[in-house]
Amino acid sequence: MDKNHNQATWIWYPDDYEIWLHQKVSVLRQFRGYICPPSWRLDSAYTSVKFRKTFDFAQPELLTLSVQGTYVLHMDGSMTPVPYERRPVTSLLIPAGKHELTVTVYNDQTIPAVYATGGANSCTDNTWEVSAYNGKWVRAASWNFHDICCPPSGFPFSYETVRPTSISTVNGAIIVDFGRETFGYIKFLGAAGKGTIRLYYGESLQEAMAGELAETFDELAIESDTPLDYTTSVTRAFRYIQLRADEGISWRELIHEYEYVPLEKHGSFSCSDERINQIWDVSAHTLHMNMREFIFDGMKRDRWVWSGDANLGFLINNYVFFEQDVTKRTLVALRGKEPVEIHMNTIMDYTFYWFISLSEYYLYTGDIAFIEANYAKMLSLMNFCLKRCNDDGMMEGYPDDWVFVDWAPMERRGELCFEQLLFCRSMETMAGFAKELGDKEDEERFVKLAEKLRQTIFSLFWDEEQGGLIHGRLDGELNQQMLKYPSMFAMRFGYLDLAQQEMVRQHVLLNEGIQKISTPFMRFFELEALCQIGEQERVLQEIRDYWGGMLDLGATTFWEEYDPSLPDELQYDMYGDKFRKSLCHAWGAAPIYLTGKYVLGVKPLKPGYKHYQVEPHLCGLDWIKGAVPTPDGEIVVYMDKSRINVTTSSSGTGVLSFTSEWPPEANEGELKRVSEFGYELILSRLNFQYEIIFRPLIQQSIRNSTTSEML
Amino acid sequence: MDKNHNQATWIWYPDDYEIWLHQKVSVLRQFRGYICPPSWRLDSAYTSVKFRKTFDFAQPELLTLSVQGTYVLHMDGSMTPVPYERRPVTSLLIPAGKHELTVTVYNDQTIPAVYATGGANSCTDNTWEVSAYNGKWVRAASWNFHDICCPPSGFPFSYETVRPTSISTVNGAIIVDFGRETFGYIKFLGAAGKGTIRLYYGESLQEAMAGELAETFDELAIESDTPLDYTTSVTRAFRYIQLRADEGISWRELIHEYEYVPLEKHGSFSCSDERINQIWDVSAHTLHMNMREFIFDGMKRDRWVWSGDANLGFLINNYVFFEQDVTKRTLVALRGKEPVEIHMNTIMDYTFYWFISLSEYYLYTGDIAFIEANYAKMLSLMNFCLKRCNDDGMMEGYPDDWVFVDWAPMERRGELCFEQLLFCRSMETMAGFAKELGDKEDEERFVKLAEKLRQTIFSLFWDEEQGGLIHGRLDGELNQQMLKYPSMFAMRFGYLDLAQQEMVRQHVLLNEGIQKISTPFMRFFELEALCQIGEQERVLQEIRDYWGGMLDLGATTFWEEYDPSLPDELQYDMYGDKFRKSLCHAWGAAPIYLTGKYVLGVKPLKPGYKHYQVEPHLCGLDWIKGAVPTPDGEIVVYMDKSRINVTTSSSGTGVLSFTSEWPPEANEGELKRVSEFGYELILSRLNFQYEIIFRPLIQQSIRNSTTSEML
Repeated sequence: MDKNHNQATWIWYPDDYEIWLHQKVSVLRQFRGYICPPSWRLDSAYTSVKFRKTFDFAQPELLTLSVQGTYVLHMDGSMTPVPYERRPVTSLLIPAGKHELTVTVYNDQTIPAVYATGGANSCTDNTWEVSAYNGKWVRAASWNFHDICCPPSGFPFSYETVRPTSISTVNGAIIVDFGRETFGYIKFLGAAGKGTIRLYYGESLQEAMAGELAETFDELAIESDTPLDYTTSVTRAFRYIQLRADEGISWRELIHEYEYVPLEKHGSFSCSDERINQIWDVSAHTLHMNMREFIFDGMKRDRWVWSGDANLGFLINNYVFFEQDVTKRTLVALRGKEPVEIHMNTIMDYTFYWFISLSEYYLYTGDIAFIEANYAKMLSLMNFCLKRCNDDGMMEGYPDDWVFVDWAPMERRGELCFEQLLFCRSMETMAGFAKELGDKEDEERFVKLAEKLRQTIFSLFWDEEQGGLIHGRLDGELNQQMLKYPSMFAMRFGYLDLAQQEMVRQHVLLNEGIQKISTPFMRFFELEALCQIGEQERVLQEIRDYWGGMLDLGATTFWEEYDPSLPDELQYDMYGDKFRKSLCHAWGAAPIYLTGKYVLGVKPLKPGYKHYQVEPHLCGLDWIKGAVPTPDGEIVVYMDKSRINVTTSSSGTGVLSFTSEWPPEANEGELKRVSEFGYELILSRLNFQYEIIFRPLIQQSIRNSTTSEML
Repeated sequence: MDKNHNQATWIWYPDDYEIWLHQKVSVLRQFRGYICPPSWRLDSAYTSVKFRKTFDFAQPELLTLSVQGTYVLHMDGSMTPVPYERRPVTSLLIPAGKHELTVTVYNDQTIPAVYATGGANSCTDNTWEVSAYNGKWVRAASWNFHDICCPPSGFPFSYETVRPTSISTVNGAIIVDFGRETFGYIKFLGAAGKGTIRLYYGESLQEAMAGELAETFDELAIESDTPLDYTTSVTRAFRYIQLRADEGISWRELIHEYEYVPLEKHGSFSCSDERINQIWDVSAHTLHMNMREFIFDGMKRDRWVWSGDANLGFLINNYVFFEQDVTKRTLVALRGKEPVEIHMNTIMDYTFYWFISLSEYYLYTGDIAFIEANYAKMLSLMNFCLKRCNDDGMMEGYPDDWVFVDWAPMERRGELCFEQLLFCRSMETMAGFAKELGDKEDEERFVKLAEKLRQTIFSLFWDEEQGGLIHGRLDGELNQQMLKYPSMFAMRFGYLDLAQQEMVRQHVLLNEGIQKISTPFMRFFELEALCQIGEQERVLQEIRDYWGGMLDLGATTFWEEYDPSLPDELQYDMYGDKFRKSLCHAWGAAPIYLTGKYVLGVKPLKPGYKHYQVEPHLCGLDWIKGAVPTPDGEIVVYMDKSRINVTTSSSGTGVLSFTSEWPPEANEGELKRVSEFGYELILSRLNFQYEIIFRPLIQQSIRNSTTSEML
């Protein structure tokens, strides 16, 4: 949450808004009218919170106070309350001199929160402190609740009225089509009569047509002789709605209140291939739909925060909206409160993705304050993991843990190489943060543990013959199966030397004999690994085929899963049920990340883009163009067959890497030849457009560095 | 909570009813209309809970289900809900064969709870399991909610209509007197007019007369032309009420709805001194008033559960109501949820009293099931303590801990001998429970830690010259001050050998030069220690003077504190404010404990009265008579100057100890002479009245054994 100085704002106990909101949204999931709460613990906000602030005024100052909850005011530690008018909004004259005001608030419905405004420095800001129990005072948290009349009792959504693109009759039922996937309420204007209107929502026409078999539906009771407006009571994700109204019910117009968070696209991508451009736009809409209170997995079904899914959402967001508040809210909500009793979302890998997400958040934003605020909770989660290590320092799934990796069939018991890689990266993350925060002892501890684990992984699981990392070990026996997951994650994490990279490239990533990855979740990482070995052109073709395939089936947002080989009538089945598949799934927006990071080629090398790389690839296109957001403005890249233009942002130093058949020319800076055809240009001028004339290689053979992206 | 087999009852997640109820009552405290939440963390119940039960029916059986919360039913692990009519009460046909039913419930207002009834063994009982997060299934909890229509959404109080004993006008104000301290609502029958009735409550007439200076008051808005009934919205403790009604408001009658828990007095005491008998009766009323959802400290002000205060309440309860459900609820509520972040009620000693209360609960009831159910939480609280030990294995207060001991002035920093004694006893308690529960490793650990600490205490703090335990050590320097607390607790815990006992008796307990104890809290323990050195007669005189003094001032319940030397007009002041003193305070009921345990002389020697002692003392009275409750009926004792009658309960073996100038005679059993005038009789017959003829010593010189009462 943003800290605000000297602007009055609602304040509360750190993390409580996120935790309260998380519980609230976690129980919205429905399946055909049944509730469906998650199987992990739902945490609650503190209900009784003290707020305090010491004032030091030359003159008495009048403070106006608004409180969410019942409350009492005390001054200077007295047990007797200071007198004030007991109303939700009250005022209090603070005497001159040094005085401590304490506001004790109880609220078991929303969260205890306080808003104060008055003379200089007397308003609520992050100089106030809060306590949920004796002895622990911490800085108050706030966000964007700056209006005294709008306390943090909900989420500040925006709304837009949307009208159907068509209303038609299909097999005797009324079908309303909004033209593309949307989310929110349905309103019947001027409705009259007595009875029920049933609404069957469909992300696909088939789902809406399926009536009671649709994942979600609502009933609206109408009872009025004169026309009245009726609105559905909960938000739904849909493109189509089938309506079934009782005889005699009429309405003037049906409209839709689209509920969303206004987000600005700071990132962009376009190129000479219109299909790719369309895929990018639909990806952006897909991600936008899922970026709300938190980054959700998908909008129709779970609307839950899944740590692994969110990890992808965060990365994609970094290349389009760069909206970090939602990332922070999501990370805080996922972590919840103490004590840690099970893995995040019950999944062992998902605990690790949380650490990795934090590491990537820091890399993209440089926001050490957020890391510091969450460091204690990171430590306690990591200690939970360390307690579960076996004698070799590896983590196996406990009986009730979900060891996920991917939906594909595989042995999940014992020491999975994949899990150890994620665990190792998590400990490296802790070591990095410990270093940044000056926690020498933990830095040393985690460096040692991570090094030891990395050695264990490679000595046990690296298979020189098969050219990759094997699956794992169960009861002391190695499982030699070669799946793509461990090797591609080792690649992502920069754990492979050049020889190992080459082996993985040939024997794993480009090996048709290895079990194919079918979920977009793991395909994300697979495509990234392919980019890392210079296969951008192949990845772009995959994007055209896989994401383009969904477009061909009418997708207006990208799906949870897509199998081109399935007949159309089975495209919406998943988890053994009709229409369970989410057709608006955050990870479906992967092309944004892949094009931004590996086609435009922009990525941070040091936290907050203090140092970054620009390594654009034409990938067989005539031209590419786009912007990548950073904490200090966008980095804009253009490339065609003779020119590269890079406009720098307002901070940091970049390095432009590219190949050219003959020596290139630049309008600024010194071009450095780094290999036969490889050149580098340091981008040190801020807000400046670098222009380079070059000549692409006929046969491009790109090999990206596999520099670790960590700290 | 009681476990019920084969009787349908409401079930929920263990401890959640107590924790939810505790939060609810903790925020009822008011001070002159202001809220006053406690400064410790308020825990919340789990909001999302799964209930499961595997049935194995020969024939399909119809199950009727009622659920507190929104819910969904699943069978046999299927992701798709089983179809049922979605109403708060529903029914479901369970097929023949083995089937697992899961009821997932969400409830953020009260607690998730389920009631099921149907064929044989299909009802909700403690064979159902519950889970608040993936992987942890535990036995469901229940209590006395056996009615499908009465879910655990409140506390099952009883009500009785009480009419004022007098209504009068004092200084122009209407004063309603209910004759004695009471608790509940006020109802105006047939009230009419428009305006406000103000009610100023008083435990004393002075408080009611003080109007806005009374600790509690209410306003009741009346607005009706025709007579209607109006009731106050919250419960209050009072004897008197001052009424101030606006002009034109009238009512037919004012009545009081007394809210209480019906409790049976299983214990009793009477003797030839009517004043003592009256004190015992007022004590019983005092304790009864405070035994409600939990054992509270006092009824007017805090209505909070304070661990140290409750320790006394539990002990007194064991000699009158023997109502153990309230003890269990109180212990569970006090402990709350994980993680432990501060001491109980913020007070270091109060953490220790919790362990000691558990030890005493087990000694008096033998209920190992409750100990087992709470063992994990005991361990984690003890681990919290152990982490705070210094290098010598002692606990000092942390900066934000409250080191209480007593209200008396004293040095509270550093290693207080008193605190180490309580800590040592807590570890002995853990060692004892670990042994009972077969936790060898922890038994050994705690035995060692406790032994080491006891040695440290005595080698550092035992002062042979002063004849007692000194106050403590601060920054390595001993504080030689001699206060009564450590020595009297060492006596209570059986830590003193005979020589040390004699020294403490002379130089500490009966030493007029040592700072007097003024709070009834510590006087309780002081009077107990005096009984333990055979000073019952002196203690009885104290009871006559101190408690009798309150009666002389018109007390109908006993007070939080009483200082006979104060002028009447200051008797109700406390904590620096008029009328803050609670006049109905649980610990005020101490005479019940002292007479039951040290005059009738009945106490358990083994858990659950498997083995017990009866050691009656006439204390200069002509006769004493009474009953002491045990888990299996009462032990009834009568003694006069020539006879002792003891009627045994229906289990356990007692030992009757007494002195006689000449050899006594008994109607049963073999009298054993144990010293010059000391005799013992084994009480092995159950439900039998033993009759002994004896002759009291002229000069009684009683020395009780200081046998440890522990396990």
